[in-house]
Amino acid sequence: MSKNEQELSQLGSVFDTRAAYFVCNYFASHDNYLVDLDGNEYLDVYAQISSIALGYNHPELIKVAKSDEMAVALVNRPALGCFPSSDYRTILEEGILAAAPPSLDKVWTSLSGSDANETAFKAAFMYHALQKRGKGTPFTEEEMKSCMENLPPGCPDYVILSFEHGFHGRLFGSLSTTRSKAIHKLDIPAFQWPKTPFPRLKYPLEEFEKENSQEEERCLELFSSVIDQWKGRIVAFIVEPIQSEGGDNHASPYFFQRLREISLEKNVLMIVDEVQTGVASTGKFWAHEHWNLTTPPDFVTFSKKFQAAGFYFQNPEFVPNQPFRQFNTWCGDPSKAIIARTIFKQIQKDNLVSKIREVGDYLYEKLETVFKSTPVTNLRGKGRGTFIAWDFDSAQERNEFLLKMKQHGINIGGCGDSSVRLRTTLIFEKKHADILCDAILKVLNV
Amino acid sequence: MSKNEQELSQLGSVFDTRAAYFVCNYFASHDNYLVDLDGNEYLDVYAQISSIALGYNHPELIKVAKSDEMAVALVNRPALGCFPSSDYRTILEEGILAAAPPSLDKVWTSLSGSDANETAFKAAFMYHALQKRGKGTPFTEEEMKSCMENLPPGCPDYVILSFEHGFHGRLFGSLSTTRSKAIHKLDIPAFQWPKTPFPRLKYPLEEFEKENSQEEERCLELFSSVIDQWKGRIVAFIVEPIQSEGGDNHASPYFFQRLREISLEKNVLMIVDEVQTGVASTGKFWAHEHWNLTTPPDFVTFSKKFQAAGFYFQNPEFVPNQPFRQFNTWCGDPSKAIIARTIFKQIQKDNLVSKIREVGDYLYEKLETVFKSTPVTNLRGKGRGTFIAWDFDSAQERNEFLLKMKQHGINIGGCGDSSVRLRTTLIFEKKHADILCDAILKVLNV
Repeated sequence: MSKNEQELSQLGSVFDTRAAYFVCNYFASHDNYLVDLDGNEYLDVYAQISSIALGYNHPELIKVAKSDEMAVALVNRPALGCFPSSDYRTILEEGILAAAPPSLDKVWTSLSGSDANETAFKAAFMYHALQKRGKGTPFTEEEMKSCMENLPPGCPDYVILSFEHGFHGRLFGSLSTTRSKAIHKLDIPAFQWPKTPFPRLKYPLEEFEKENSQEEERCLELFSSVIDQWKGRIVAFIVEPIQSEGGDNHASPYFFQRLREISLEKNVLMIVDEVQTGVASTGKFWAHEHWNLTTPPDFVTFSKKFQAAGFYFQNPEFVPNQPFRQFNTWCGDPSKAIIARTIFKQIQKDNLVSKIREVGDYLYEKLETVFKSTPVTNLRGKGRGTFIAWDFDSAQERNEFLLKMKQHGINIGGCGDSSVRLRTTLIFEKKHADILCDAILKVLNV
Repeated sequence: MSKNEQELSQLGSVFDTRAAYFVCNYFASHDNYLVDLDGNEYLDVYAQISSIALGYNHPELIKVAKSDEMAVALVNRPALGCFPSSDYRTILEEGILAAAPPSLDKVWTSLSGSDANETAFKAAFMYHALQKRGKGTPFTEEEMKSCMENLPPGCPDYVILSFEHGFHGRLFGSLSTTRSKAIHKLDIPAFQWPKTPFPRLKYPLEEFEKENSQEEERCLELFSSVIDQWKGRIVAFIVEPIQSEGGDNHASPYFFQRLREISLEKNVLMIVDEVQTGVASTGKFWAHEHWNLTTPPDFVTFSKKFQAAGFYFQNPEFVPNQPFRQFNTWCGDPSKAIIARTIFKQIQKDNLVSKIREVGDYLYEKLETVFKSTPVTNLRGKGRGTFIAWDFDSAQERNEFLLKMKQHGINIGGCGDSSVRLRTTLIFEKKHADILCDAILKVLNV
């Protein structure tokens, strides 16, 4: 039995390992290479489900991890809302806030992508109720009383609209907006919140311009009409710039521009879920910057590659009108915010946004050649950094491909029903793209 | 303007500081003393809303925070479900799992108290559905389809029962079980899940034995009848050993024994929320150990003082029958599990469970004397370590007391409508109890 198998079986007695690929030696892993317990090195284009920004054991991160600032943040975890730390302002200003998308200059910090989305939902609900009630109008007796019974008007029947195939997390509110796979949702009670279709584009895009444009118009009409049908109950909608877990589904900047316009017309808030797309991997720091919106989104949520989670916003009224409404014990985690700051500074210093755009373009072009005369279809993600995906005809073919790639030294992941998604680090270079393509050629026998 | 006020106002431009007591210098804080930006030292009996176990800047924690193991865990945050780390098994076995309550030998790790409760709810729902469906029975087409619409049968209308004045977190599922204050719930949509009263005991206990026993019987009958009324829809109930946020409400071991018996009779799972009571502060490692249950709870959730969150359980069938059902990107955080291990080892090494029980007994007795001929009522928490509370006649009197205590060098917190709660570290000693009591005497002018 290999060391890997041995440890997997032992670990299995205390931790659910049924989803495990292999056991990792993170001490030995380095830059784009993930090392397993038997010493196998994998070029990692999955990066902990899109969570590793600067590769493994980046020296700047190690330095920060061993700093006094980090030690103090780790061992004295503060209740930030009540007892903020003396350095929290600069940690935010030089890190998470300096990285904020254009115009969105305020932040709420939380602990995971699900948590980021759910606290954004809460902010949206509280804002909507405030608008409806009128500023300065106090809560009514009936509201105060009914909310303790989980009933309207105190707990209103407002809803969040999401898109088919979208993924926004797995806690109860976020799971009610998640529409990726049945296995994520089965047996869990859900809010009866509505959904609407996300475009299913055909590739290559240049061959299907007309069909794709019609498909987007169809989805826009349904988006608009579902908002009307729910007669004011839809407070916000949530959308990923690229539906990731659901199969790397893209739409055009025009589609998102129209979503924004319609949502403004109909007084519905726009939440852009950048948990997976955020932090440079699509060749812009935030994927929604590709859309050139004239009015920014109301909320942009983030997590994964920043190792810290939360949401950005612009409108000061999204801070609830009283303290302790958006609140919890920790209100974030300074140790994670310190990591996020280091990641942001390194991205700036090393120009990683433009570098990943360039290497993405290089890789995309190479893949176009590689996949000629193979069963692979729907190559997508052009101009989106290394956020690239493609399809096989079946889940089985896809899974065989993933397994063979592992045998050829590449750690790579799937999404949707039969798609493969690339989720590289931000220090992925052309030489790694070449290694990846060589392995694909071997595995596909071309 | 003091440095404190200055920083609060600057921080206020990037972070909501309306709930802030003061800005802390965590670098200078030590053991039981929290230091603010102006150099004021406070004896801290609030401990970051009950989150600090070993005091500020404990040398063992600082050592671990600066270790290679911590640095590697921090900078290579793994997707533990897919890519577990080589040292995760021993980190769990020597820490979080070694600390597990009697019989509950399995754990699911998450990121916050809310997250711990919600993932326990999910485990309960999936288990219940499995029992109803029959093991080995596959999901039906209808279940697979309806869950994507957030509708039954795929998303069943099962519910979690909670107690009036309980607090279990603030995400959408956990908030639906939280019944502490209106301000926590207003304007947020909720599941229409039921509640039932928690006993309101009268103090001193020895004077009100008969009334309190009647009150507990009344609540037990209502607990039993609400389960019947909901005709099989109540899958689990959640209860705190001491309702903390809701006002430090206690009940007798008998009450909890009966809850367990009734829940077993009626096939309802028992979730004990030890997010605030867990990790030694009540004079046992887990507060529910005070009850001597013959059948352990089904789930025990934890967070705060362990700096790591999750739930314990015994039944292997609470691990869902397929992978990726209880799942998310990170599935916990090794850096936090390393901290939890250090905290656990230190508690064992320094005998902190029995020490906190002793100092709690000493403090309780002293407070009985201190509060004679004062307006303070309902002193409670005898035999529960330093988990002690008392009441004032009004919120205003309570708030004035808290403010004056701060002026006398004590950082102390409230809960419920007009209660004061002590939430000391685990290294709180008799000398600190003396300082605390002296300050109380001065503030109450006795």
